[in-house]
Amino acid sequence: MYKNIKVIAFDADDTLWVNETYFREAEEEFAELLSKYETKNKIDQELFKTEIRNLSQYGYGVKGFILSMIECALEISNYQVQQKTIEAILNIGKNMLEKPIELLDGIEDVLKNLQGKYKLILATKGDLLDQERKLEKSNLLKYFHHIEVMSDKKEKDYLKLIQHLDIEPSQFLMIGNSLKSDVLPLIKIGAAAIHVPFHTTWMHEEVSEQVSAKATYKTVSNIKDVIALF
Amino acid sequence: MYKNIKVIAFDADDTLWVNETYFREAEEEFAELLSKYETKNKIDQELFKTEIRNLSQYGYGVKGFILSMIECALEISNYQVQQKTIEAILNIGKNMLEKPIELLDGIEDVLKNLQGKYKLILATKGDLLDQERKLEKSNLLKYFHHIEVMSDKKEKDYLKLIQHLDIEPSQFLMIGNSLKSDVLPLIKIGAAAIHVPFHTTWMHEEVSEQVSAKATYKTVSNIKDVIALF
Repeated sequence: MYKNIKVIAFDADDTLWVNETYFREAEEEFAELLSKYETKNKIDQELFKTEIRNLSQYGYGVKGFILSMIECALEISNYQVQQKTIEAILNIGKNMLEKPIELLDGIEDVLKNLQGKYKLILATKGDLLDQERKLEKSNLLKYFHHIEVMSDKKEKDYLKLIQHLDIEPSQFLMIGNSLKSDVLPLIKIGAAAIHVPFHTTWMHEEVSEQVSAKATYKTVSNIKDVIALF
Repeated sequence: MYKNIKVIAFDADDTLWVNETYFREAEEEFAELLSKYETKNKIDQELFKTEIRNLSQYGYGVKGFILSMIECALEISNYQVQQKTIEAILNIGKNMLEKPIELLDGIEDVLKNLQGKYKLILATKGDLLDQERKLEKSNLLKYFHHIEVMSDKKEKDYLKLIQHLDIEPSQFLMIGNSLKSDVLPLIKIGAAAIHVPFHTTWMHEEVSEQVSAKATYKTVSNIKDVIALF
C-alpha cells in the first residue's frame, strides 16, 4: 500500500520527540506558584479556558502559552499575584524553550528507512524558530527536505500545504500522534494518515471515539511499526 | 533585466503594509505606562536591550515583543510595576494583533503586473498565524502562491528557502524594505534584490552605509517603480 505517496509529512511534537510532557510539567509549576489562590484543579481549568480563548490570537506554541499563563495568573489572583511570580512564569517559558530533545524510540530507524524513497517534511503547528531549534538539536535535520509551519491543522490548511507542494491529496501521507490534527482532516480530503498515539494528549487535541470510528486509517502503537506498512 | 528570475519573494511588514509604525506606537504606550519609573529615552533603551537579549529564544513577532515588554517592566520598576499595568501590556499586544491592514501605496498594481509571469511568495520573519491573518485582511492573498515564514533572514536562511523552492539563487528576487534582511544577504548568495525603503526602520535592522555601499542592487523610492524595472 501507499504506492501513490510522494511526500510523507511527520508531525514533530510527541511524534518525533517528547513535548506534551513539558507542558504538563509547566502546568504543575504554574499551579504550584498560584497554590495560595486556588486548587490545582481550578487553576488547570482556568488556564485551559484562557488558552482556548486566546488561541485565535496567539496560535500554538510556547510563547502564546506563557502569555496565557500570565493573563490567567492575574485573573486567578484577582490582581494580587506578586511581581516575582510573573517573573517566575516568564522563566518557566524560557526553560521550556531550552529543554533538551528526547527522541521517541525508533524514530531514526523509520526516517532512515523512508529517506530517499519519499520526500520527507516536518509539518507542525508550533513556532518556526522553536521547531527549527528542536530539529537541529535532534540531529534529525538531515532526513527532512524542509519544515512546514502550519497556523492550524484543519482540512483547509492541509489542502493549502498540498497545493504548495504541487501534488495531489492522494500522494500525501501524514504521520502523527493527534487524531484530531494529524489524522482525521487528512482522511476527509483524500490523503493518507498513520496514527501513532502518544501517552499524553492535550485536552484540546482529544476527539471522541464516535467521530474517529468512521474514518479509515492505520494505527501503530510504536513508530517503528510504520516501516512494515510500506 | 531579471530575465532568469522564476520566483519573486516580497517581504510583508513595511513592504506590503504598515507595521513598524504600530511597534513605535506600542513603545510609546509602554513608556507612558512606566513613566513614573524612568524617562522615555531610558525605557526605550532598556526595552531594546531586552528584545535583543531574548531574540535567540523568542524570535521575531508580536508575542515575543510582549513577553520582552513584561520582563522589561519588572526590571525597570524594580518589581514594583502594578498588576493592572501588566494587564495593560498584554492588551497592547492583543491590540497589535487586531490592527487593521494599511496597504502601502501602489502595492496592488505591482502584484497584478507580476502575477502570472512569476511565482510570487511572501517571505517574512513574523509569526505565521499573524502574517496569515494580515494577508487575508489585506485582500492580497490571491496574488501569492504561499507564505514562507523564516526564523531569520540571513544568507543561510535564504539558501535553505531557495533549496526548498528547487531553484537556483540566480532565479530568486527579493523585494523588501530592510537592507539588512531583504537585500544584502541576497546579493551575497548570488540572488537579486530590490530595496524599497520605508520611513521607519527598527534599530536592529539598520546597517551602516559603509557595509551597504559595496553591494549591487536597485533601490526604488516607491514600490510602483518596481514595474518599470522588468
